Amino acid sequence: MGSVLASLINYFKQPVCVVNMLVKSNSQFERLKTILKIKARTLDYARSWFKQHEYFEVQGPTIIPAIGDRPCSFEVDYFGRRTYLCQGLQPYTSSFVDMFKKIYTIAPTFRAEKLRTKRHLAEYWRIEVADSSIDLDGIVGVQEQLVEYICNKLSEDAAEELTFLHRSADDLAHIRAPFLRLTYDDAIERIQKQGLDVHWGEELSWDLEYALSLCFDKPFFVKEFPMNPNTFFYESHPQKPEITLTADLLAPGGYGEIASSGQMINKKANLRRKMKDEKIEPAAQRWYLSFKKTDTVSVSGFAMGIERLIQWICKLDHVKEATAFPRKYESNYP
Amino acid sequence: MGSVLASLINYFKQPVCVVNMLVKSNSQFERLKTILKIKARTLDYARSWFKQHEYFEVQGPTIIPAIGDRPCSFEVDYFGRRTYLCQGLQPYTSSFVDMFKKIYTIAPTFRAEKLRTKRHLAEYWRIEVADSSIDLDGIVGVQEQLVEYICNKLSEDAAEELTFLHRSADDLAHIRAPFLRLTYDDAIERIQKQGLDVHWGEELSWDLEYALSLCFDKPFFVKEFPMNPNTFFYESHPQKPEITLTADLLAPGGYGEIASSGQMINKKANLRRKMKDEKIEPAAQRWYLSFKKTDTVSVSGFAMGIERLIQWICKLDHVKEATAFPRKYESNYP
Repeated sequence: MGSVLASLINYFKQPVCVVNMLVKSNSQFERLKTILKIKARTLDYARSWFKQHEYFEVQGPTIIPAIGDRPCSFEVDYFGRRTYLCQGLQPYTSSFVDMFKKIYTIAPTFRAEKLRTKRHLAEYWRIEVADSSIDLDGIVGVQEQLVEYICNKLSEDAAEELTFLHRSADDLAHIRAPFLRLTYDDAIERIQKQGLDVHWGEELSWDLEYALSLCFDKPFFVKEFPMNPNTFFYESHPQKPEITLTADLLAPGGYGEIASSGQMINKKANLRRKMKDEKIEPAAQRWYLSFKKTDTVSVSGFAMGIERLIQWICKLDHVKEATAFPRKYESNYP
Repeated sequence: MGSVLASLINYFKQPVCVVNMLVKSNSQFERLKTILKIKARTLDYARSWFKQHEYFEVQGPTIIPAIGDRPCSFEVDYFGRRTYLCQGLQPYTSSFVDMFKKIYTIAPTFRAEKLRTKRHLAEYWRIEVADSSIDLDGIVGVQEQLVEYICNKLSEDAAEELTFLHRSADDLAHIRAPFLRLTYDDAIERIQKQGLDVHWGEELSWDLEYALSLCFDKPFFVKEFPMNPNTFFYESHPQKPEITLTADLLAPGGYGEIASSGQMINKKANLRRKMKDEKIEPAAQRWYLSFKKTDTVSVSGFAMGIERLIQWICKLDHVKEATAFPRKYESNYP
């Protein structure tokens, strides 16, 4: 029994901050149950949509040897070596798209950002898609069709659950593609008009997204973001080299970003040149490029945060309500 | 661009042993593609089966504060705190079953065992089920019905892929529940008859499972394992206190265990007494028991390794072939 004993003792040596379900009363229990019902339906509808549209389901690795395209990763001790928890399917996407052209994954994702907002989890599930048959406009279309399908199906099948959460099923029935497409330039102008301090070139932080999304009552896109670390792997605009072929999907009414997308750099030579311009060391360039087998097709993709989607669909105050055992950066955890 | 640069350089500082897809030639590419097609279908069929039988899909946490019921967990630096990667849904199962009675999850799982067999991955996906309406016999029935359904559907829909892998679709069409149920005692006797050195009470190691599974040409169960760390959380047999209400599902022909299952300890008082007998410290007892809200129903469950299921279905030499980017304990990785 030695190992069981050691294991259970070990449980208690750890801080309890990451373990408790957010349920203290019967009404919280019923509320979480209702939210999880809507989440399960949402995943089911998403998979149906992908099946209808011939997207192929894949699983990428969770333990990765490097931090991916964002700086905040959790470290894992992998048989004595330092590895990280994945932040998405990059750079493995290329290998899967080479095989199947249109792929998706629904899997856990990790961010070690020290953020205390109502919008950030340290562990969340994402829907990630890559498609070698479409460009930026195409992947924007995939996102809006998927969201329309999920919202419409929920309005038909989950009216009871939505009503319980004081969410109008009728509103969800009226979510219809196409969604509005703002350019990043339009977005900055709109935010500035609200008297907020923002300059061209800045990333849209959570408070700016919040302000912008208050202007709309349906989901909308912000597209053509400037080149920055988050958009490094995406194609530049053919006429405007300072901006990229990227688009974020924002939920209205103060919810903000639920998905980010773009048209990935196609030609190996272009990616190599961009990495060279940025003085990335040759060995790292070779390693990253080793995943790209072909460069004859354009690949576009998006990643959608499932808990954020559910937060908006269910109109939840905090994204942590969209999961039973939330993990987030916070010292006093309920 | 600073963070992208740092990130890419970081890629190369890591050992390359955990990153390469197992594809070196066109024929390997086609082979992996075929296996992944069968894997995607298998997951789709499993979800259909769960939907038909009203199992509810949930997601447990991946980052957990303790090592669960097995000693070999990967450590994660969680904002400076030591946490671990999950090895299954325990102890969170109880909370979900309280809500939904019949639940399943399909999610990544992690084992830090230093094993170089053809059967062990450090990261794999599992199908995990818990059901508060059935006992050990019931959960054995769920597993065999699920495996029958998957095998039969594959034989109908994936004959081309199976033929490509030299696997008989006809064999899979003839997988029919009920599967044979051996007791642990029977299994030990059979293994001993093969001249292998095994004593009552031992766990069935990989080489013993291998030997046993060579005796059969259809999946079969070994049930009623002795009490040991792996079976700690399961009910004791009402007449034979030294054995537990547990069952492993083994694939035939040298493949061995693909799922383990059992009837969990029902009454909080019994679990408390068992932990007390084992001198587990009171704080740890309280923590573990805090997840158990009710103790009026019997919960049974199983966990099935998806890559092991695929290894058997596709007759793969090594379990790593069932995933695109395998992570396993090995110093020289292809």
